[in-house]
Amino acid sequence: MENYERLSLNQITTEQWNLKEAIEGCARAEVPWIAPWRHKVEELGLSTSKRLIKDAGLKVSSLCRGGMFPAGNASERQKRIDDNKRAVEEAAELGTDVLVLVCGPSPDRDIVSARQMVEEGIAQLVPFAESHGVKLGIEPLHPMYAAERSVVVSMDLANTLAEAYRPEQVGVVVDVFHVWWDPDLYNQISRAKGRILGFHVSDWLVPTPDMLKGRGMMGDGVIEISRIRKAVEKTGYSGPIEVEIFNDQIWSQPADETLIQMKESYLKHV
Amino acid sequence: MENYERLSLNQITTEQWNLKEAIEGCARAEVPWIAPWRHKVEELGLSTSKRLIKDAGLKVSSLCRGGMFPAGNASERQKRIDDNKRAVEEAAELGTDVLVLVCGPSPDRDIVSARQMVEEGIAQLVPFAESHGVKLGIEPLHPMYAAERSVVVSMDLANTLAEAYRPEQVGVVVDVFHVWWDPDLYNQISRAKGRILGFHVSDWLVPTPDMLKGRGMMGDGVIEISRIRKAVEKTGYSGPIEVEIFNDQIWSQPADETLIQMKESYLKHV
Repeated sequence: MENYERLSLNQITTEQWNLKEAIEGCARAEVPWIAPWRHKVEELGLSTSKRLIKDAGLKVSSLCRGGMFPAGNASERQKRIDDNKRAVEEAAELGTDVLVLVCGPSPDRDIVSARQMVEEGIAQLVPFAESHGVKLGIEPLHPMYAAERSVVVSMDLANTLAEAYRPEQVGVVVDVFHVWWDPDLYNQISRAKGRILGFHVSDWLVPTPDMLKGRGMMGDGVIEISRIRKAVEKTGYSGPIEVEIFNDQIWSQPADETLIQMKESYLKHV
Repeated sequence: MENYERLSLNQITTEQWNLKEAIEGCARAEVPWIAPWRHKVEELGLSTSKRLIKDAGLKVSSLCRGGMFPAGNASERQKRIDDNKRAVEEAAELGTDVLVLVCGPSPDRDIVSARQMVEEGIAQLVPFAESHGVKLGIEPLHPMYAAERSVVVSMDLANTLAEAYRPEQVGVVVDVFHVWWDPDLYNQISRAKGRILGFHVSDWLVPTPDMLKGRGMMGDGVIEISRIRKAVEKTGYSGPIEVEIFNDQIWSQPADETLIQMKESYLKHV
């Protein structure tokens, strides 16, 4: 990358900051985009979040996150839909047209049925999201999160789910950490042409210090990030690139340092 | 499962035992099959291993493991082929016709080229293996092992690699721990009809205590083991079922207890 025009701080990378601090941090570091997380927005308040982001001159690349559709009974599933509708409203209010979907784990051992619940949940959410000008970005997670976070664990399935809709309604979010291992990756990225709604970067560390909080800064691991970026761009995607790193060590250092490292790694390794 | 006819102890499940102890343990517990690991065979000696297994009346379901094909230069790759040839000879000597292949990680970031090295490695090994009456069983590993253990991380790729050969030469090994998350699992199992050379069971614990040594006893996790077994059997596979569990806690208990638990879990959950 030649400059920072497309660089976005996914807020989880600076977990130690609240949203106000993250907004101020991005402004100081001249990072033009931010992707807030809902629990941090709630903490600061939606209207205050919106105002501070605007005042700082930041753009919102996406809102993290909707999804979590599967549940053990119909009323709980309906609650999840209602919560997703609130997420859509928040995304629209914050000025982004992308709500990232982390689709959720199965309530039991039946992963096939849970995928059906995801399909049904998306179907229920699409008209509401469209009426708010918000696209749903299905983010396939790494298969090691299949039991606890998402039954959607491949680009193939994310593409299949998205293709039931128009590209203005539903697309996919490509996160290198989640998809780098996939033998079918480059085919699936091509297939997603016109539907890629986000591109997330971090790295796979060897050894991996923790299944959840063990992602690395770009360049510190084994992922061919720029090869994947080029494939994503070949489909026409030229939107923001979010740095999304779950890492205990990075979370315990001063977050301003994280932003400096992130900018340097972005130019070198993305 | 109704009885123990197909039950095999993959030796890693009783890591605390050497091969002699594992053989005696299987005989005591009336587990009819065993899958030895090469480093344990080496420790005991090949001919002694063979004799003790035979004297105990055990059958060998497979030898773990060949593979590890990718390397940074041609001479190192040749060393790996030579080692694989020794593994083939050992499998034949021990009386099994299946050598399990854990294909190996990439020597660098280029996972696509590493997969090419796997393809080439298998191509070099096939004639030698066939002349010894040994089939190569490609075992796709879980994608979380892509960086450190195997670039073959999907049934799709394992099937594609195997299909370059006759079923008498190369097949696939289905391990529920490695493949349960796959949205395309049941299609890929059907596709493997006539080529399934082994079926391994354990479970995915929630939370997962450790990426390597955190597998569970069957029934203790979220995998639909019997559903997968039925799909595997529908292809015609009726061979041994190996219990293969990497787990620090299980490795620190008396291994005779592990065999008792394993037999109970097998009847209930496989």
